[in-house]
Amino acid sequence: MEQLQHYSTFLKESISSYNFPENPTNLYDPLRYFLTIGGKRIRPMLTLISGNVFNLSKEECIHAALSIELFHNFSLIHDDIMDLAPVRRGKTTVHEKWNSNIAILSGDVLLIEAYQQLVKYSDERLPRLLKRFNETAIEVCEGQQMDMDFESRQDVSIAEYIEMIRLKTSVLIGCALEFGGILAKQSEKACSSLYNFGVELGIAFQIQDDLLDLYGNPETFGKQIGGDVIANKKTLLWLNAQQLSLENVNEIKAIKNSEEKVLQAKNIFEKCGAKAKTEVEMNLHYEKAMQSLDLLEINSDKKKPLYELANFLLNRSL
Amino acid sequence: MEQLQHYSTFLKESISSYNFPENPTNLYDPLRYFLTIGGKRIRPMLTLISGNVFNLSKEECIHAALSIELFHNFSLIHDDIMDLAPVRRGKTTVHEKWNSNIAILSGDVLLIEAYQQLVKYSDERLPRLLKRFNETAIEVCEGQQMDMDFESRQDVSIAEYIEMIRLKTSVLIGCALEFGGILAKQSEKACSSLYNFGVELGIAFQIQDDLLDLYGNPETFGKQIGGDVIANKKTLLWLNAQQLSLENVNEIKAIKNSEEKVLQAKNIFEKCGAKAKTEVEMNLHYEKAMQSLDLLEINSDKKKPLYELANFLLNRSL
Repeated sequence: MEQLQHYSTFLKESISSYNFPENPTNLYDPLRYFLTIGGKRIRPMLTLISGNVFNLSKEECIHAALSIELFHNFSLIHDDIMDLAPVRRGKTTVHEKWNSNIAILSGDVLLIEAYQQLVKYSDERLPRLLKRFNETAIEVCEGQQMDMDFESRQDVSIAEYIEMIRLKTSVLIGCALEFGGILAKQSEKACSSLYNFGVELGIAFQIQDDLLDLYGNPETFGKQIGGDVIANKKTLLWLNAQQLSLENVNEIKAIKNSEEKVLQAKNIFEKCGAKAKTEVEMNLHYEKAMQSLDLLEINSDKKKPLYELANFLLNRSL
Repeated sequence: MEQLQHYSTFLKESISSYNFPENPTNLYDPLRYFLTIGGKRIRPMLTLISGNVFNLSKEECIHAALSIELFHNFSLIHDDIMDLAPVRRGKTTVHEKWNSNIAILSGDVLLIEAYQQLVKYSDERLPRLLKRFNETAIEVCEGQQMDMDFESRQDVSIAEYIEMIRLKTSVLIGCALEFGGILAKQSEKACSSLYNFGVELGIAFQIQDDLLDLYGNPETFGKQIGGDVIANKKTLLWLNAQQLSLENVNEIKAIKNSEEKVLQAKNIFEKCGAKAKTEVEMNLHYEKAMQSLDLLEINSDKKKPLYELANFLLNRSL
């Protein structure tokens, strides 16, 4: 945990000292603004942790870690335009503070900056980093498109939902972890294990997020309890309830009073077994993550931080 | 010229057989659509021509050429959203045919696909290709931002305008030409000459475009004569006229009848010397392009296609 705090401070410093040009101000001011309003910076931290498993210093890994963080912020800026989101991390989004055109263009620049960071590793690691990064970046876009498509679809299957969160969220977690392995010139097999560990962990983490939305501790969750239900969002909980419930789950949608809506959803999802089924799915992916980590052929002492990380990410109070 | 036709067919085939995934259809259908509605494909052709100067086959250069074309199309898709353009290349733009969200996201994917093409060169050429590409890509975004900023500014200087077109249009021409040199593992010096040749040629070409808008042959220009004047666009002609004219050029803006507006602009720009001054500026950059090409230390026979190219691009009937 002390290590995480140390990395967190290092990342914060690296990001706040990121050197964007002064002009055009309408292009770079939004990036200076967005990168410093924070976020948990979990993704770049994964690269530092993973690199450290193979004895790489944080300085050695920082450019790859930054590429992950810059990419993540690019996707948030563009997603926020598409979702018409007024607020992110408690602050006004870029397209709201400036306008959509500026948000599109500064997002584009941020994606290119992510590549700029990768080119710092201009040896035999570069093609490996780029291949994983490109594949991941494309998949994240595909996931966002699936998510948008789901809004107007009534027949989204559980498998499709899992695939959507794998693409939209989890592959970037996998990429961040694999980067540590690639930087340390580990074998394809070792890198695959790291990647799969990250992807499965990411899926479990996202499902946990769906659960916490309704069943989380209001004091530690950080977001409004029941936010997904109030927004009629098709989460895994919802899809499971739709499949299991004898009562018509869609009736929840019609409830206007937010408090009652959330209470009803909580009860129905629990009674029909949707909550339990969602937990089973979460644990399944957690187990898969563990299995991938088991396959990584390094000293188990060295692997300890990765097990701890999984525990840390998936042990929030339910 | 026969060679150009040959390259053109090859590029058309390579682009139309570009293999996008089937799903999500809302992400990839726009790309299949946009890439096949054409355009002149001058930029990727520059890479093939430049590579051929150093005896590289078109097959050897195609991925770098495609990265240029994919990037160019990415920038058009996003620019069209920002400019609210309903039509491009005589066809409906992506954001009009689908919607802005889909245009943002499929544009993003296209930018990543451009990088996918570059990674095909996974040897010591990759860092060189990427460094030039990243720098160019960022500059193109900066140019677009400057162009947008200019719309609401009344004090744009000639120098700023030239810098804007250098960034928005010309550096990509330079990049496309330099790619041929990098692929052929030429020296930094040779690559710089190619790049500078392209950038200066690009600036001259763009200024010629400003001139042709008013003084071009309606039968060969391909666009509506006077389109820039009708749209009150700040072209180099306009900025020069503003600087030179004793009459108030801004009065042209107020003329409602398009035909009269174009006629008035034509006369005023000619009388006040703005046309002549713009031609001097164009020729200056053409000369700079030639000087850069002179610096390229290869057999003059080998350079011939590049001189021909410059001639071809800048010899449209005025």
